[in-house]
Amino acid sequence: MISFENDYSAGAHPKLLERLSETNLEPLPGYETDRYCESAARKIREACGCPEADVYFLTGGTQTNAVVISSVLRSYEGVLAAETGHVNTHEAGAIEYTGHKVLTLPERQGKLDAGELRAYMEKFHGDENREHEVFPGMVYLSWPTEYGTLYSRRELSDIAAVCREYELPLYLDGARLGYGLMSGEADMTLSDIAGLCDVFYIGGTKVGALCGEAVVFPRGNAPRHFMTMVKQRGAMLAKGRLLGVQFDALFTDRLYFDISRHAIEMAVRLRQLLHEKGIPFYLESPTNQQFVILEDGMYRRLQERAAVSFWEKYDKTHTVVRFATSWSTTEADLEELEKVLDEIQDKDQH
Amino acid sequence: MISFENDYSAGAHPKLLERLSETNLEPLPGYETDRYCESAARKIREACGCPEADVYFLTGGTQTNAVVISSVLRSYEGVLAAETGHVNTHEAGAIEYTGHKVLTLPERQGKLDAGELRAYMEKFHGDENREHEVFPGMVYLSWPTEYGTLYSRRELSDIAAVCREYELPLYLDGARLGYGLMSGEADMTLSDIAGLCDVFYIGGTKVGALCGEAVVFPRGNAPRHFMTMVKQRGAMLAKGRLLGVQFDALFTDRLYFDISRHAIEMAVRLRQLLHEKGIPFYLESPTNQQFVILEDGMYRRLQERAAVSFWEKYDKTHTVVRFATSWSTTEADLEELEKVLDEIQDKDQH
Amino acid sequence: MISFENDYSAGAHPKLLERLSETNLEPLPGYETDRYCESAARKIREACGCPEADVYFLTGGTQTNAVVISSVLRSYEGVLAAETGHVNTHEAGAIEYTGHKVLTLPERQGKLDAGELRAYMEKFHGDENREHEVFPGMVYLSWPTEYGTLYSRRELSDIAAVCREYELPLYLDGARLGYGLMSGEADMTLSDIAGLCDVFYIGGTKVGALCGEAVVFPRGNAPRHFMTMVKQRGAMLAKGRLLGVQFDALFTDRLYFDISRHAIEMAVRLRQLLHEKGIPFYLESPTNQQFVILEDGMYRRLQERAAVSFWEKYDKTHTVVRFATSWSTTEADLEELEKVLDEIQDKDQH
Amino acid sequence: MISFENDYSAGAHPKLLERLSETNLEPLPGYETDRYCESAARKIREACGCPEADVYFLTGGTQTNAVVISSVLRSYEGVLAAETGHVNTHEAGAIEYTGHKVLTLPERQGKLDAGELRAYMEKFHGDENREHEVFPGMVYLSWPTEYGTLYSRRELSDIAAVCREYELPLYLDGARLGYGLMSGEADMTLSDIAGLCDVFYIGGTKVGALCGEAVVFPRGNAPRHFMTMVKQRGAMLAKGRLLGVQFDALFTDRLYFDISRHAIEMAVRLRQLLHEKGIPFYLESPTNQQFVILEDGMYRRLQERAAVSFWEKYDKTHTVVRFATSWSTTEADLEELEKVLDEIQDKDQH
Repeated sequence: MISFENDYSAGAHPKLLERLSETNLEPLPGYETDRYCESAARKIREACGCPEADVYFLTGGTQTNAVVISSVLRSYEGVLAAETGHVNTHEAGAIEYTGHKVLTLPERQGKLDAGELRAYMEKFHGDENREHEVFPGMVYLSWPTEYGTLYSRRELSDIAAVCREYELPLYLDGARLGYGLMSGEADMTLSDIAGLCDVFYIGGTKVGALCGEAVVFPRGNAPRHFMTMVKQRGAMLAKGRLLGVQFDALFTDRLYFDISRHAIEMAVRLRQLLHEKGIPFYLESPTNQQFVILEDGMYRRLQERAAVSFWEKYDKTHTVVRFATSWSTTEADLEELEKVLDEIQDKDQH
Repeated sequence: MISFENDYSAGAHPKLLERLSETNLEPLPGYETDRYCESAARKIREACGCPEADVYFLTGGTQTNAVVISSVLRSYEGVLAAETGHVNTHEAGAIEYTGHKVLTLPERQGKLDAGELRAYMEKFHGDENREHEVFPGMVYLSWPTEYGTLYSRRELSDIAAVCREYELPLYLDGARLGYGLMSGEADMTLSDIAGLCDVFYIGGTKVGALCGEAVVFPRGNAPRHFMTMVKQRGAMLAKGRLLGVQFDALFTDRLYFDISRHAIEMAVRLRQLLHEKGIPFYLESPTNQQFVILEDGMYRRLQERAAVSFWEKYDKTHTVVRFATSWSTTEADLEELEKVLDEIQDKDQH
Repeated sequence: MISFENDYSAGAHPKLLERLSETNLEPLPGYETDRYCESAARKIREACGCPEADVYFLTGGTQTNAVVISSVLRSYEGVLAAETGHVNTHEAGAIEYTGHKVLTLPERQGKLDAGELRAYMEKFHGDENREHEVFPGMVYLSWPTEYGTLYSRRELSDIAAVCREYELPLYLDGARLGYGLMSGEADMTLSDIAGLCDVFYIGGTKVGALCGEAVVFPRGNAPRHFMTMVKQRGAMLAKGRLLGVQFDALFTDRLYFDISRHAIEMAVRLRQLLHEKGIPFYLESPTNQQFVILEDGMYRRLQERAAVSFWEKYDKTHTVVRFATSWSTTEADLEELEKVLDEIQDKDQH
Repeated sequence: MISFENDYSAGAHPKLLERLSETNLEPLPGYETDRYCESAARKIREACGCPEADVYFLTGGTQTNAVVISSVLRSYEGVLAAETGHVNTHEAGAIEYTGHKVLTLPERQGKLDAGELRAYMEKFHGDENREHEVFPGMVYLSWPTEYGTLYSRRELSDIAAVCREYELPLYLDGARLGYGLMSGEADMTLSDIAGLCDVFYIGGTKVGALCGEAVVFPRGNAPRHFMTMVKQRGAMLAKGRLLGVQFDALFTDRLYFDISRHAIEMAVRLRQLLHEKGIPFYLESPTNQQFVILEDGMYRRLQERAAVSFWEKYDKTHTVVRFATSWSTTEADLEELEKVLDEIQDKDQH
């Protein structure tokens, strides 16, 4: 059965497995002090244009969000995020578990708006009772967002300007960063992002790795004893090599970018195909996730032939369904999907 | 350079890498709902003789300890552990980070004593002010312990009896479980352990996996919504396959036991070698870790030729050093070590 | 200067101070085990018509909310509250500090709506990914609400019915409970509230005590070792008598109800006065808080003569201002306020 | 029945109740912003000789310890305390509840030893694996200690010197500070203590107040937004006047010191009396608590006539019992105790 279920349904890009095998028997020190972690960090610093950056490797996205946010915030601070932000909705309360509130702002196609952020901060500082409230201490956003949308350079710069004015660290969740960077709509490079953010992560799990996210503090601005906090939050791998080798491979010969571009090419064709079949879009995204509205009968028939993701109920008889491409999506998958859709629609007409 | 530094300095057993490669392109659902996780869980249930067991896969040891302990304890409870227990000393306060105290008992070669545990519980329940104290809510121990020692079946049964009397869940940290089971001194099987404990984990990271620990609640007694708590604590892998495929391989054709036995055979020869060379032992362990006392000059010279682990200072001029074997230790490593020791000692005599 | 600033700007009702003095030299055991705590608890059980109730005394409202919510919720659960709920807005993140998320529902004049609550629960249980989300584990509401509004018996019953259906404990924050019960609009007694809620508190701080809130679990359903959790959260008073004596006095000869009625009578007259002076209401409340919209110049002039509370900016030139009455408000205060308003308005016309 | 049960069994010193009554009807702003809190803070600054000090008022001891420690420590740090330290034994895990470990040092009659503290710090910094451990981030001690003993100026200076060398804030729990200062053995003034510590609190609950502890950061070194953290931890009183008025009274005309001196005079006579009656001491303390060893039969008979405190079992037939004096102990109490002891001993001889 073909799968457009998500961007983590296949294993790792074969090059990564190959490198894991090649290096497997080298005895290496643990806890990310090995030469592959060092090499990967160096290559990431280069790719970001940040020679001073602190680079750390964590295992998954929710973990990374919780570790970064809880180690940057002061005790009395919360993190600002869009209502639809992953930290607010799909992480089982991982941020609150560390003692911090997620302060929500409205979402505009999954994105924060600089003006609304500024208004929030002005209201907060104008409030005579603010000592009884959670202090906003950081801004969280994702790029691409949970809806696959992208901030433009202008939009992110505007948000970064508000952040600087109010001394709010700006944190970008890049679980799908590669798919953003390679989108035709993106007008930012990795280096632009590094310049605008105070901390961000380069997603591995959803972009070709078995697991792993690379956290970047671009100006060497990691909190003191960050690795101890990583350990304290149960996020340190004994065999750090697992992360180092994979990220070293991803950032060798631009593999990370190449496999991301492939996923985007597949997404463009997927979108085209869905349009051709007359399927209504819930939201058109410029990245690797496409959200469409399916009549429930059609959704059920589709599920017998292709793996896709339930997003949410649209109304009593329709469902929002997500199709995702990834580095592992093939042209054959798309051709098969076309066949499947044709057959389902054909059947529907009889 | 040869390495006896620890049991996580090599990658994975080749069979595991092979299986990761073979299954790599199969599209699988995420978050441990894939067929390999299911198969691995089934095989582990069989190996434990616990058809009802709940089995979950986590990534590393500190994480597993924090997730298990914090999800089993009630808010007002702490976990009892030996003073030298890993949770008390080497996890950067991961248990306290979840809001719970580690209550300490004396250690006897790394082990708890059933009598001292009972005395603690009697004192606690006899204390008129106990409502102002942390309630002991669980017992943590490791097998093998941090010093490589093993509880006998008698010792563990006695502890389990106290636990049952006081309704304390008994939790066994099996980071190195395989090396315990295959030790010549062990008088317990995996099934015995499952019968005595309320929850334990079968360590993968230190026994041949890239990462991964299998948590077993032997009587289907996992806390409700355990996986949500795993997610909340940042411990859930999107590509659960990474853990499922590895544990499935480890529990196919008794691989887990075979590679553990190999490590023990190597450890027996290592111990013999160290004795032959007249090196004093800090503690003689029946498992894969050996602790010796080296004069500091000798320690420095050794470090140039072989990777070993600093344990602690013994006195002003001596250091406690740990040698560890693992599934990846070879006879050639031992031969090389013998040569190295000879040369160092030879030099010392001139 | 007269004060309508809030309902905690005076000290305690004189009867309470008198009883504190009379009992002052009796040696009493600590930590709420004294006879006054017992007597107060007994009288509260009677007033609630709940002979089985567990009654505990805490010091303040935010503390009570944090202790109750964190001791009732399971680790993976959050508390549902209106967006304007005190726990969501004005407690500096006290709930999140205990590791739990406040899940928000829309507010309707400060109130939750049973239909919206049900819709939330249905959506949650219909979500295939709910294991990645915070489980709703409790409902928080206040009576009177932050806006001084009241749920009718019908409204609260409907919410309680949804709670029972979904096994959600219903928690009522009664910081101003007396002012609700004595409102002309209230159609519930203390006993009705006890029948509908799983836990609630009877506010003392804002209803005549120096400090103190009485937590009631009406069916003896307090979490096990509740007092140890009170201690653990820093909320236990050594001299529990301070709370016991005060609540014993408040629930002797219906003092709690009488002083609440007085405050409501003063509020009715205050509302009338504000209407007569043509001051627009932001929200008309049936209890002791009245919210009006003042032009900023008038607000400034008023502040020179009377203490009132800033609520929030209404627009660029107007402010929402709160007037509160309490047990200590006098007719003379109202007469003086009338004079002040006349003079300010008179000045405005010249 | 006479009471030597503890130093919080009576209410407040009458002067405090009188001042609460006199100021009762003044409308005052909430949350410790009233004039009495200001006046009390000013007087405390003077008494400490610290014109720059930040002074805050909290309600109880466990609360104060948890708020101060958790607001000063960084996330990855723990607090060092004697094994017998109140935070380690009798606060139901309140420190761990905030996410921080209590790191223990041996106790010497309830006290820390500067040499052992230094040795701990040296070992920690010499440990190659310290990034996997809890960083010591603060030193907690009490004066008087849980056993009523006192650090001399020399001892406290030595500890403070180690703290300064390792940049560890030194925190002194002064729940019974007055009884320490007025002890004949004390060679420190309040000003000496303020000079040596980075934060300490002046206990009110056990020294004449209904409740309340005054936290002093002597060099204006309170953490930023301390009051928001107080609120977040549920420790802020709406009617801050309750604390302000009491501390204002305690620090007017040296009342705090006078009532403490009285308690010490009573303790000296109590100690003498116990000696005269031939009762063996568990520990002789220079402050208001005396620990003796009673045969269990005698203990039971004593309990029928006088309230005292169970401390711990001494052996199968003896119990360690605490007698405490306070500002409210009278000569008549001592005379009655003498009579009671005579009668019990007399009966024992028949």
